[in-house]
Amino acid sequence: MDAPQFKEFAKEMVDYVANYLENIRDRRVLPTVEPGYLRPLIPDSAPQKADKWEDVLADVEKVIMPGVTHWHSPRFHAYFPTANSYPAIVADILSGAIACIGFSWIASPACTELEVVMLDWLGKMLDLPKEFLACSGGTGGGVIQGTASEATLVALLGAKARALAKFRKEFPDLSDFEIVSKLVGYTSAQSHSSVERAGLLGGIKLRSLPVDEDYKLRGETLENAIKEDLEAGLIPFYAVATLGTTSSCAFDRLDEIGPVCNEHKVWLHVDAAYAGSAFICPEFRYLLKGIERADSFNFNPHKWMLVNFDCSTMWLKDPAWLVDAFNVDPLYLKHDQQGAAPDYRHWQIPLGRRFRALKIWFVLRLYGIENLQAFIRKHISIAHYFEELVRGDDRFEITAEVIMGLVCFRLKGENVLSEQLLKRINARGVVHMVPSKINDIYFLRLAVCSRFTEQGDIDITWKEVRENADLLLAEKKNHIN
Amino acid sequence: MDAPQFKEFAKEMVDYVANYLENIRDRRVLPTVEPGYLRPLIPDSAPQKADKWEDVLADVEKVIMPGVTHWHSPRFHAYFPTANSYPAIVADILSGAIACIGFSWIASPACTELEVVMLDWLGKMLDLPKEFLACSGGTGGGVIQGTASEATLVALLGAKARALAKFRKEFPDLSDFEIVSKLVGYTSAQSHSSVERAGLLGGIKLRSLPVDEDYKLRGETLENAIKEDLEAGLIPFYAVATLGTTSSCAFDRLDEIGPVCNEHKVWLHVDAAYAGSAFICPEFRYLLKGIERADSFNFNPHKWMLVNFDCSTMWLKDPAWLVDAFNVDPLYLKHDQQGAAPDYRHWQIPLGRRFRALKIWFVLRLYGIENLQAFIRKHISIAHYFEELVRGDDRFEITAEVIMGLVCFRLKGENVLSEQLLKRINARGVVHMVPSKINDIYFLRLAVCSRFTEQGDIDITWKEVRENADLLLAEKKNHIN
Repeated sequence: MDAPQFKEFAKEMVDYVANYLENIRDRRVLPTVEPGYLRPLIPDSAPQKADKWEDVLADVEKVIMPGVTHWHSPRFHAYFPTANSYPAIVADILSGAIACIGFSWIASPACTELEVVMLDWLGKMLDLPKEFLACSGGTGGGVIQGTASEATLVALLGAKARALAKFRKEFPDLSDFEIVSKLVGYTSAQSHSSVERAGLLGGIKLRSLPVDEDYKLRGETLENAIKEDLEAGLIPFYAVATLGTTSSCAFDRLDEIGPVCNEHKVWLHVDAAYAGSAFICPEFRYLLKGIERADSFNFNPHKWMLVNFDCSTMWLKDPAWLVDAFNVDPLYLKHDQQGAAPDYRHWQIPLGRRFRALKIWFVLRLYGIENLQAFIRKHISIAHYFEELVRGDDRFEITAEVIMGLVCFRLKGENVLSEQLLKRINARGVVHMVPSKINDIYFLRLAVCSRFTEQGDIDITWKEVRENADLLLAEKKNHIN
Repeated sequence: MDAPQFKEFAKEMVDYVANYLENIRDRRVLPTVEPGYLRPLIPDSAPQKADKWEDVLADVEKVIMPGVTHWHSPRFHAYFPTANSYPAIVADILSGAIACIGFSWIASPACTELEVVMLDWLGKMLDLPKEFLACSGGTGGGVIQGTASEATLVALLGAKARALAKFRKEFPDLSDFEIVSKLVGYTSAQSHSSVERAGLLGGIKLRSLPVDEDYKLRGETLENAIKEDLEAGLIPFYAVATLGTTSSCAFDRLDEIGPVCNEHKVWLHVDAAYAGSAFICPEFRYLLKGIERADSFNFNPHKWMLVNFDCSTMWLKDPAWLVDAFNVDPLYLKHDQQGAAPDYRHWQIPLGRRFRALKIWFVLRLYGIENLQAFIRKHISIAHYFEELVRGDDRFEITAEVIMGLVCFRLKGENVLSEQLLKRINARGVVHMVPSKINDIYFLRLAVCSRFTEQGDIDITWKEVRENADLLLAEKKNHIN
């Protein structure tokens, strides 16, 4: 494909995707295909000779679209949002053309340096303590990870390296394996599945601690667990506090957990994957109180801040624990300016990395802080609008405080009612939601996800919920009578 | 940014990047900036109000380009190539617009299903044994990882899970930590730094084994190491064979290593990150002999097969070891079709994943197998052309057999000569190479990287090398006289 063909094809694709996004409201949110639908639609091996780009573009609508779950439909309310914005898509065109691998400063200085400064911009937008910012001149700084799961694992590995260094000195007779077998980390029973998985991947014991009646992890609970484990001869070394849990968007009490971690020299990682974006609005920063006690902090602009996946931003007060513990530096990766700027390969699991800071730069500049704040506030106000609709129907109940863009609700009564309700709603495909369960109470989660969602979409969604509930409850009643 | 603005901006960017790539030959390969160059060029915080896209585009040339190392310059010969092609850039526009997160089948069936089939297409192009292909109906199949580092780590974790399952049964009195402390893996001293790092990250002993005079790991070396460790009461469980090492593009003797691994039930992972793309040409498949003995195989289309980063394809004969060992399945990620199609989140470290199979589909269709083969063969023939130029100058020597697109060479004599030669070449910025060192012999690596590289570029590169050598050797001579 030569440059003139590329220009033609790329511009057609730009028109196609603009058309796709601007008219996404008309598509069924959930596809109707069955597993295995795609294989018969395309040849069983790659072509020997080049196809025409016009045919490839035509196949997008024929082969791909029937199997797409439209995450940016205004009535996609499952999981949490994933970002999608025009400035980020354009930034990725540039990133794809430069196509540098930024594993070291010299491998593309702009790639590393824009990332350092963008993480400062973002950190300032959230009013993070200066210890996390590179511009403060201390040891701290930010980095773009692929996902929050990787950030949690990276923090765990940093914490493990710090604990090993300390206990090797204190107990020179113990082998590393013996020390590791005594390490214990903590998280709440409501933290994301990826936290438990980080423990499995890292081969480390992680205790899942109970939450209070508002689904928050409290300082006292953590304190008691640490004391118990110390008495049992274990080594508490790592804790994850979640700001905005996946099930119900609960906020662990960072203000209580921080001092406990500091007292016991436990590495505190704060996972604000979804809710972190809201901290660009000052009125939500009360939930971030205590952040100055944390060792690492992570949130996903690729969830709720209009920067396309993958862009999970993480700040560390002292990245040296990672850089030194997992530094493997062959000659072909060394360069003369080492130490004068971060070599980000040491801050992450993979070696290679794309030029992702461009996406942040484009989004922050082409929205501006005010429009990003307005976007967050709009989603939250839409969530409260839906909350009010639910509260106005006494067959339903709200199961968790609505703070961000997530509404947890259910039909009063047995779980099976809400289970059947959700099944009916998803089967119709007008709206898509996923459930969760806390303390054996099953509920539906409505996450405001798309940047296209308007109050009118929520009216349609509520109509879907209400009408399906009418039918379901009428059937139940007939069945009983 | 609304849709009309996006169309205008995106199309301008398409023209900009086509212009950038078509004229990349005119740019200095290595930038001249110093660490910290970028911060003073942009404001110290994000703007409150939106900037104009025209200003952002103008800043790309002012702020970014001065700090870019141009990986796609025809005279960029450092590291190994990273892919960049027009079809892949267009595919990423589509991927960015659909912006689904394919962590489960239902989260976007097309995303999972196209990946399953593309990994079959690719596997067939390499003539992989059918045990690795999903279309064979067995347990095997392929997955897109972010990087080869992640593939190595994922394979190590699978091997660890398999070993733990086996030894828990055989030694019910041992704790997991005791078993893990006995596990030992193997790799060659010439394997990529990420293999050693996977051992560090996974908290596992990895032994680095010596290579033969052609820098290949031999079966006998591995066999002896395993026997030694068995006698010492350790548990050999994992081995990495490299096809195309980073230092010199050497190929471990897979045909010898495979039987040893099988005999001792050691998980064999084959890392062909760079060279794997060449196996689409039948004449290079002799290097893949023995692949049927491996448990997992990985190569990077994002290196040498024109699919933009990140796209590291991995095949496993039995992914259940991964899926079962690290499966953490909260209610919000469950769906009704579980088991009928892979839920790729279980096959990888992160949870989230982009729709990357689109890039493979576009590249395979818009090049066709023949053009991709021609691309590989051209790079290799260019490497041999450079090899001949070097061989024609008796001040130089070739330090490793040239098999793929990498030429390792040096000035005869002390290392310091070649070190100074490379320093001069890189300082001039017309050409960029990185060095390596094996057995204390320092050498320069010329990797053919860009799809724009022509014989004429190699003539310029050789002129740079020769003229700098002339100057250097003349100075040395004057200094001595």
